[in-house]
Amino acid sequence: MADEGQWQPHQLPQLKSELKRIGITMPAEKLADLTKHPMSAMVSLGGCSASFVSPDGLIVTNHHCAYGAIQRNSTPEKNFIVNGFLAKTRAEELPGGPNTLVYVTEKVENVTDRVLKGLAPNLSGRERHELVESRIKALVAECETDKSARCSVPAFHRGLEYYRIKQLMIRDVRLVYAPSDRIGNFGGDIDNYEWPRQTGDYSFLRAYVGKDGRPADPSPDNVPYKSKDFLVVSAEGLKNGDPILLAGYPGRTSRYKLPSEIRFARDVDFPGKVATITADLSVISAATMGNPAWDVRYASVAKSLNNVLKKTQGLLDGFARKDIAAIKDVQDAEFRAWHKANGAGASKNLLGELDSVIAQDMAASRQEGAWLEATHSDLLKSARSLYRLALERQKPDAQREAGYQERDLSFIKARLTRLEQSFVPQVDEARWGAALARYARVDARLRPQGLDALLPAPTAINAMYKTTELADTAKRLAWIGKDPDAFRKSSDPFIQLAVRLHETGMALENRRNEIDGNLERVIPQYMAAVIAWKKSQGKPVYPDANSTLRVTFGTVAPYSPRDGLVKGPFTTVEGIVEKATSKDPFIAPAPLLDAIKAKRYGVFKDPVLGTVPVNFLSSADTTGGNSGSAIMNKRGELVGLNFDSTYESITKDWYFDPVITRAIHVDIRYMLWLMKEVDGADNLLKEMTIKYPKK
Amino acid sequence: MADEGQWQPHQLPQLKSELKRIGITMPAEKLADLTKHPMSAMVSLGGCSASFVSPDGLIVTNHHCAYGAIQRNSTPEKNFIVNGFLAKTRAEELPGGPNTLVYVTEKVENVTDRVLKGLAPNLSGRERHELVESRIKALVAECETDKSARCSVPAFHRGLEYYRIKQLMIRDVRLVYAPSDRIGNFGGDIDNYEWPRQTGDYSFLRAYVGKDGRPADPSPDNVPYKSKDFLVVSAEGLKNGDPILLAGYPGRTSRYKLPSEIRFARDVDFPGKVATITADLSVISAATMGNPAWDVRYASVAKSLNNVLKKTQGLLDGFARKDIAAIKDVQDAEFRAWHKANGAGASKNLLGELDSVIAQDMAASRQEGAWLEATHSDLLKSARSLYRLALERQKPDAQREAGYQERDLSFIKARLTRLEQSFVPQVDEARWGAALARYARVDARLRPQGLDALLPAPTAINAMYKTTELADTAKRLAWIGKDPDAFRKSSDPFIQLAVRLHETGMALENRRNEIDGNLERVIPQYMAAVIAWKKSQGKPVYPDANSTLRVTFGTVAPYSPRDGLVKGPFTTVEGIVEKATSKDPFIAPAPLLDAIKAKRYGVFKDPVLGTVPVNFLSSADTTGGNSGSAIMNKRGELVGLNFDSTYESITKDWYFDPVITRAIHVDIRYMLWLMKEVDGADNLLKEMTIKYPKK
Repeated sequence: MADEGQWQPHQLPQLKSELKRIGITMPAEKLADLTKHPMSAMVSLGGCSASFVSPDGLIVTNHHCAYGAIQRNSTPEKNFIVNGFLAKTRAEELPGGPNTLVYVTEKVENVTDRVLKGLAPNLSGRERHELVESRIKALVAECETDKSARCSVPAFHRGLEYYRIKQLMIRDVRLVYAPSDRIGNFGGDIDNYEWPRQTGDYSFLRAYVGKDGRPADPSPDNVPYKSKDFLVVSAEGLKNGDPILLAGYPGRTSRYKLPSEIRFARDVDFPGKVATITADLSVISAATMGNPAWDVRYASVAKSLNNVLKKTQGLLDGFARKDIAAIKDVQDAEFRAWHKANGAGASKNLLGELDSVIAQDMAASRQEGAWLEATHSDLLKSARSLYRLALERQKPDAQREAGYQERDLSFIKARLTRLEQSFVPQVDEARWGAALARYARVDARLRPQGLDALLPAPTAINAMYKTTELADTAKRLAWIGKDPDAFRKSSDPFIQLAVRLHETGMALENRRNEIDGNLERVIPQYMAAVIAWKKSQGKPVYPDANSTLRVTFGTVAPYSPRDGLVKGPFTTVEGIVEKATSKDPFIAPAPLLDAIKAKRYGVFKDPVLGTVPVNFLSSADTTGGNSGSAIMNKRGELVGLNFDSTYESITKDWYFDPVITRAIHVDIRYMLWLMKEVDGADNLLKEMTIKYPKK
Repeated sequence: MADEGQWQPHQLPQLKSELKRIGITMPAEKLADLTKHPMSAMVSLGGCSASFVSPDGLIVTNHHCAYGAIQRNSTPEKNFIVNGFLAKTRAEELPGGPNTLVYVTEKVENVTDRVLKGLAPNLSGRERHELVESRIKALVAECETDKSARCSVPAFHRGLEYYRIKQLMIRDVRLVYAPSDRIGNFGGDIDNYEWPRQTGDYSFLRAYVGKDGRPADPSPDNVPYKSKDFLVVSAEGLKNGDPILLAGYPGRTSRYKLPSEIRFARDVDFPGKVATITADLSVISAATMGNPAWDVRYASVAKSLNNVLKKTQGLLDGFARKDIAAIKDVQDAEFRAWHKANGAGASKNLLGELDSVIAQDMAASRQEGAWLEATHSDLLKSARSLYRLALERQKPDAQREAGYQERDLSFIKARLTRLEQSFVPQVDEARWGAALARYARVDARLRPQGLDALLPAPTAINAMYKTTELADTAKRLAWIGKDPDAFRKSSDPFIQLAVRLHETGMALENRRNEIDGNLERVIPQYMAAVIAWKKSQGKPVYPDANSTLRVTFGTVAPYSPRDGLVKGPFTTVEGIVEKATSKDPFIAPAPLLDAIKAKRYGVFKDPVLGTVPVNFLSSADTTGGNSGSAIMNKRGELVGLNFDSTYESITKDWYFDPVITRAIHVDIRYMLWLMKEVDGADNLLKEMTIKYPKK
C-alpha cells in the first residue's frame, strides 16, 4: 500500500497500524474528528488548501494561491508582486478581492440514503441523473438556510456514497504578507513540476468577519475571525525518512479507471489535448506578438494552458515510461476472476454493463471535444452562458440547472466581469478561427450531428467581432436578467449564434446526462465490488479525489528518476545562489542573496545539511487542489506547505507508483528564516506559536 | 589534499598514510617499483592506457582505444563494429594495423643533470631551448641503440626534472575481442562526458613478438608476448566508499597555471577556440551534406572536433560556475607572500620575470592562433610537413628537428597515408576558404608579420585544388626523399605555398622556441619555489601530466552537481533498458536486452544493487590519456577500466575540485557478465585469473 491514499478523515482509524509503522505518534482517532485539532485548522480557499496558524484568523497558504490578492493590490508604483508585501499592523492588511474566499468546513454528513433511496431501477440514465441532481439541490438548499453557509453534496466513488458538506464561507479575506514573487515563484514556469526546486511558495492571509462573528461583506468594521483552532509551528523541521501528515482538498484523480479508459486517454484523449493546446498557444503567441498590452492580457491564459500542457505531456511521458494499462489489465483480470467467483447473482452482468457504458462515455467525449473546438471563443461562451441563464431563470429556483441558481449568480457575474482582464477581441477571433479550422479537420463521424450547418463560415467571423457589443463588460453584464425573447430578437451575432446553437448543445448535454446517469448507477456497484475484493485482502479503499478534505501520509524521501541518479529530498538556500541569474524567473532578491552569502542561518540551520533547507520531497499522495496543504510532523505540528509535485509523479492521478511519486513542499524553516532575516515579519513570528529547536 | 594528484610512482611512499587512510592495503613501496607487480602490468598504447591480464600478452583497454583496430578489420559483410568480434582461438586474432602499438615501460632514469648541467645562464631563450633539445635527442639516440626500444625524455614541472623512459615498442598487436559498439559505445557522443552512463567501453588485444621474444614486424610466425606481469581480476567488484587505485598515462594538465593564464584561457583562448571549432564544424556539415561517402570521411574529424568542443565548452562552463582565477589569486598571493619572506636572494626577481615571459607567451599564442586559421588546410599541412622534412634531411640526423629524424619517418609516412581516410578535396577547400575568411577578420595586430601578402586570394583557392596532385596519396608520398630544390621548382600550388610560407613559419617557430626556452628557464625555478612552499606545509607536489605513467587513488563516490541532486556512484543494466530505443546511439543488442530481462545475473549481481553494475564513479584524478587505465581495488586487483569523466569534472585539468570531480569507470562485473552471458567469451574468462566472490 505504501503511501498511496487520499483518505477521508473518518477512514484513518482503519490505518492505525500503518500510521504507527511510519512513526506518526498523533492518534488516528484525532485525525478523524473534523471538529477537533488539528483537522479543524484546515481550510479551503476554493481550489487551494490552507490552514489557520493563529487564533486570530491568520492563514498560511501558497504564494500562487494568494496571487490574485497580491496582483489586485499591485500597481506600477507599489509593485507587491516584485517587491513583496508585509502588513506590519492589522490596519495595513489589504482586501483580497471577491475571488479570495475562505471555506471552513463545519459539518460533514453522510446523506447517501436521502440521495439514493427509492430510485426506481428502471429509470433511464438521464432520468436518474436529473432526479439525483434535484435531490442534491434540495439538500443544498436545506443546508443553506443558514445564510453564512455554503453547502455541497459531492459523490464519493462516483455515487456509492454522498456526503453533505457545510462550510462557513468567509468573504472578507485580506492579504497579510507575501514575499517577492522572486522568492514565491522563483524558477517560475521553467521549474514548474521540476526538481531540484528552490521556491518560497507561501503567503499569509487573514479571515475577517462581522462583529457578530459571522461572515460578512468586506468592510473596515469587520474583525479578525476567531479561529477555533490553529496549527502550532515547529521550527525543528524534518530530516530524511521522517514521517509526515498532509491535510487538504485534492481536486480530482482517476485511480479506478478501467484499462480501456487508460488506453483511450493515452492513445486518443491526451494526444488530442496536447495537439489542441499546442496549436492554441501558438495562435495566442502569434496574435499577441509585438503588442505587450495584449501579451499581458493573455499571460495568465497562456500560463494556465502551459500548465495543463505540461501536465498532460507528463501523463503521456509517464504512460510511455510505464505501461500502466498493462498493470491495470492484470489487476482488472484478477478482480474479474474474483468477481466471477464471488459476485452476487444480481450483479452478474455488472461488468458487461460497465464496459458498455464506458464505451458510450468515450464515444460521447470525442463529440464533446469537437464541440469544444467549434465553440472555442470567449465571447461565444459568454453569450451561451447568458442565454442559458435567461432560460433557467424561467423556472422556479429549485428546478434550475445547478450552476444557474440564485446562489450562483454572484459567481456568474464575477466570471463575466473578470473576462476583461484576459481578453482581446482580435486574439479571441484568431483563436476561434484556428479552432474552427481544426474542427473542420475532425472526422465527420466524430462531429455533433447538425452542428456544421449552424456554424458561421470562416469568412464571416471577422464581421461578427466588428458588430458584437459583448466585448464591452457593461454591455455584457447588462444581459443578465433579460428574458429569452430578448436574446432571440437580438441582432448581436454572438447572441444570435448562442440561440442558434442552444438545441445542439442541449442534445449533447442530455446525452451526457444519460451516460452520467448510467455511470452513476453502474460504477457504484462496480466500486462496491472492488471494495469487497480489497476488503477480502484486508485493504481499505479510498475514493478518488473530489475536492473534499482528505488526509494523506508518507515520509520525507528522495527518489531515483532513472538509473544512476538520485533526486532530493532537500534543496538548500545555496541552490538559490547556484541558479540565480539576472534573468526572470531566476532573479533572486539582493537581500536574500546577501543573507545567504553572510550565512546568517541562526536556528534555522539544519544540522545535517549545515544550511537552511528550502524545499523537500515526500512520498505523500497529492494532486491539484492540495496546493497550500499543511505538512505536519508526527505530532501534527506545521513543518511545511505542499505546493507541487515532480514531473515523474504526474501519472499518479491515474496510477500511484510509490517508487517515483514525490510531492514537493516548502520547508517551514525557509519561511521562518525569510520572515526573520530577509522580510522582517517579526509581527507574524510573534503572532504564531512556534516551537524552536533546543540549543 | 583529498584525491587530487597524478603521482609519479616513486612519490607514492610519501603518500603512505593517505593511502592507508582511504583503505589501500597494498604497500606504497610496491607501487613505486615499475619493474614489479602490479606496475609492470601497466602499458601504454600511445594516447591510451592498458594493462596485461594474462601471462600470454593479453591486454585489456577501452573499446574506443581499440576502435582503429576494429574498424580496420570491418567490412560491410563482416561488420565487427556493429556485431562485435571474438577470436575463439589465437589463430582467429586479427592484425591491429600499424597504428596499434603497445609500449611496455622498461626503465625510468632521472637524467636531469645530463640535460641541464652547465647550461650558461646568459643563453637566449632560443639558444637554451635548442641546446636542451639537442641533449635530449642525444639521450634518446643513446637509448635507442637497443633497436626494440622507443625512448623519450619528457620534462617534469616544465623542465625542473627530466626522466629518460625506455619502452619496449611492440608492433604486432592483434584484436582479440570487442563487444558491439552498441555496447562499447552505447550512448555515443550524446553521453560523452555525461552521467548517468551505461557504456561497456572495453576491448581485448594481444601483444605478439618474434620467436626470440623481441618486438618484430607483424608476421604470422610471431608468438604471444610473455608478459612478465599481469593483473589478477576480482569479480567481487566494489561498493560505494571503497578505495581504488588507478594507473595509466595521463596526457596533459595545467594545474600550476598563474591566474593571468587562467583569465587568458577563459576570456580569450577558449572562447576563440569554441568559435573556431563551431564554425569549422558547420562548414564540414554543409560541405558534406547530401553526400554520404564524404560524410563518412569526415565522421571521425567531426567526432574529434566535437569532443574538443565539448571539453572546451565544459572548461568555460566550469570557469563560469566557479571563479577559479579568483581561487588561484588567493593561492598566488599566499605563495608570493611566502616567497617574499623566504625566497633566496638569487630568485628575488623570479616572479617579475615569470609574469613577463608569460605575457609574451600569451601574445605569441594569439599570433599562432591566427597562423593556424590561415593554414587550416590538410593539403597545405601535408605540403609544409614534406618540405620541412626535405630541409631537415639536409642535416645530420642528430641535428634535425625532433619529429623529422629517421626514427620519425615511419610515423610521418603513416600520417600522410592515413589522410586519405578523412579527406575530400572539396571539403578541405571549403574549410580552408572559411578559415581564411575568419583569418581576414582577425585584428591586423594579431596576425603574423608579413603573412597577409603570402596568402592566396580567396578567389585563387579553387584553382589550387584543381591543379594540385597532393590529394593523391601515392603522389603525396612520392615527395618523401626529394630534395628542397625539387620543392622550389615544383609547380604544384600547395608545394609552392609551403615553400613561400616557410620563412614566416620558421619566424613563428623561432619566437616560440625563444619563449619556451625562457619558460623552461623560469618555470622550473618557480616550481621549485612552489614545491618548497608546499613542503613547508608538509604537502608533496605532483608534476602536471605529461603522458608518463602515473598513479592516482580515490574512492567510489557519488557527487552532487547541484543543489537537490545526487549522481552515481553506480549505474546498472536496468539503465540500459531505460535508455534503449531503436535510434543510434541508444540501440542495445537484443541478446543483451534479453539477458537483462531474464535477469541472468549469476555471480555478477551486486548484493546492494541487486543487479549487474555497469559503470561507476570515483574521485580519482584523471585526464585524457587515462582512457583504458586499470582500476584496482585495495589489493591491486583489476575491478574496472577508466574511460571518461563527468561534464562537471572537465575543469579539473586546470583546477581539481574534489567536491565535483569524478572519473567514470566501467565495472569489471559488467565486462565479465557480458563475456559470459552475452558474448560467450569463455576462452578469455579461462585465460584470465579471476577471483570470484564467495557464495
